[in-house]
Amino acid sequence: MNEQNIIDALAKTNLFRHCDQHVLKTLAQKTSIKNLNKGNVLFVNKDEAALFYVIVSGWVKLFRETLDGAQAVVDILPAEHTFGESSIFENNQYPYTAETAEPSTLLAIPLELLKNELQNNSNMALSMLSSMAEYRKQQDKELEHRTIQNAPQRIGCFLLRLIDQNAKGSITIHLPYDKTLVAARLGMQPETFSRALSKLKTAVGLDVKGASIHIKNIQDLSSYACSACTSAFPCKDLQTEK
Amino acid sequence: MNEQNIIDALAKTNLFRHCDQHVLKTLAQKTSIKNLNKGNVLFVNKDEAALFYVIVSGWVKLFRETLDGAQAVVDILPAEHTFGESSIFENNQYPYTAETAEPSTLLAIPLELLKNELQNNSNMALSMLSSMAEYRKQQDKELEHRTIQNAPQRIGCFLLRLIDQNAKGSITIHLPYDKTLVAARLGMQPETFSRALSKLKTAVGLDVKGASIHIKNIQDLSSYACSACTSAFPCKDLQTEK
Repeated sequence: MNEQNIIDALAKTNLFRHCDQHVLKTLAQKTSIKNLNKGNVLFVNKDEAALFYVIVSGWVKLFRETLDGAQAVVDILPAEHTFGESSIFENNQYPYTAETAEPSTLLAIPLELLKNELQNNSNMALSMLSSMAEYRKQQDKELEHRTIQNAPQRIGCFLLRLIDQNAKGSITIHLPYDKTLVAARLGMQPETFSRALSKLKTAVGLDVKGASIHIKNIQDLSSYACSACTSAFPCKDLQTEK
Repeated sequence: MNEQNIIDALAKTNLFRHCDQHVLKTLAQKTSIKNLNKGNVLFVNKDEAALFYVIVSGWVKLFRETLDGAQAVVDILPAEHTFGESSIFENNQYPYTAETAEPSTLLAIPLELLKNELQNNSNMALSMLSSMAEYRKQQDKELEHRTIQNAPQRIGCFLLRLIDQNAKGSITIHLPYDKTLVAARLGMQPETFSRALSKLKTAVGLDVKGASIHIKNIQDLSSYACSACTSAFPCKDLQTEK
């Protein structure tokens, strides 16, 4: 990746979407590129924070661990997302552990640079606000789903996020990462996930072969999943998981 | 409430904590005071947003409704909290319905004023960012709890948030609003809540009389609830519910 590639990658994120080119250029000059395998730990919950990251490709899992050793997945982020930047507001400590969930290319940027921009450039603060508001909306919706959707509906919602929101009829999709991780992403035990997937298969007609899922009728799936949600398909409130 | 009382109430919120007095004064001059009974609807999800609110006293329930008519409680906010302000980032639509859960005194402030401040005053943007980050942390924790705590542990965590974080030994607390609402706040059906409360009673020794709950040993309760959490008691990560 050359400097222009980095600038382009930054400009695709919610955080830097509205930034001037010269700001992006300043950031790009201090950015380092990381090509990582699956399972690479970027930082650990409560570590002192020095860098934040932009995902160029791949998937990154954010999680925390309890005293009991259980893992709570905070999020699994796709390309064009940033992570670690909110440690600015957490006494400079990372609020979660970050680990690549698939082979990934990341950009690492010094948090100091972001702090300086926030202090000296009111547009940057507004950009970050708007990106934070977007994230808040997602989390909010996620919490709502945990409350009012059952497990098969939550899997259904996840599948709907993997397809083109204007698609109709039948479609075949591929899970972006392995099923254990999908389960964790949805806050389910693997057994719960398996049972719920079987139930969803029967209810709306799915053919599951490994990571590949054939949906017979998108309309049936959306009727099933979105009836227990305050949004509707096509969904304006959730990021697509592509 | 006179102008100084309003300024003082604004200064207690995360949103305006770091604001200059002259900004608070400008806001206070355009603020109207609302003394409301329980069950008063301030605005409805997706309504065009013109005002945001500060809670001076009382409790406000934020929620959305599904097509099925089910209610998803987004949050139940106590005094010193703001709501409605994030509609600035939602195409000027309220992202939830807001209703007083108890008799409440609120301040209503034009969103336009906040927008102007955000655009012209970089401190305001930083304040809002920090307040948003705080909220994000709460939601994050809430989601974590839904994933790894069971229902009795979640009630336990809620009770721990009602007491002085330095308290030890036994203590009697009072639920801040009725049990149905506590259940909704925790994302539980009323029946689930009742069963979980019974289980918690047996596990850690609680005496429940109406809205009054006697905890025999805070340490037992925190061991029970916080073992399935990535934070520990006394808790730095969750707002107290007082």
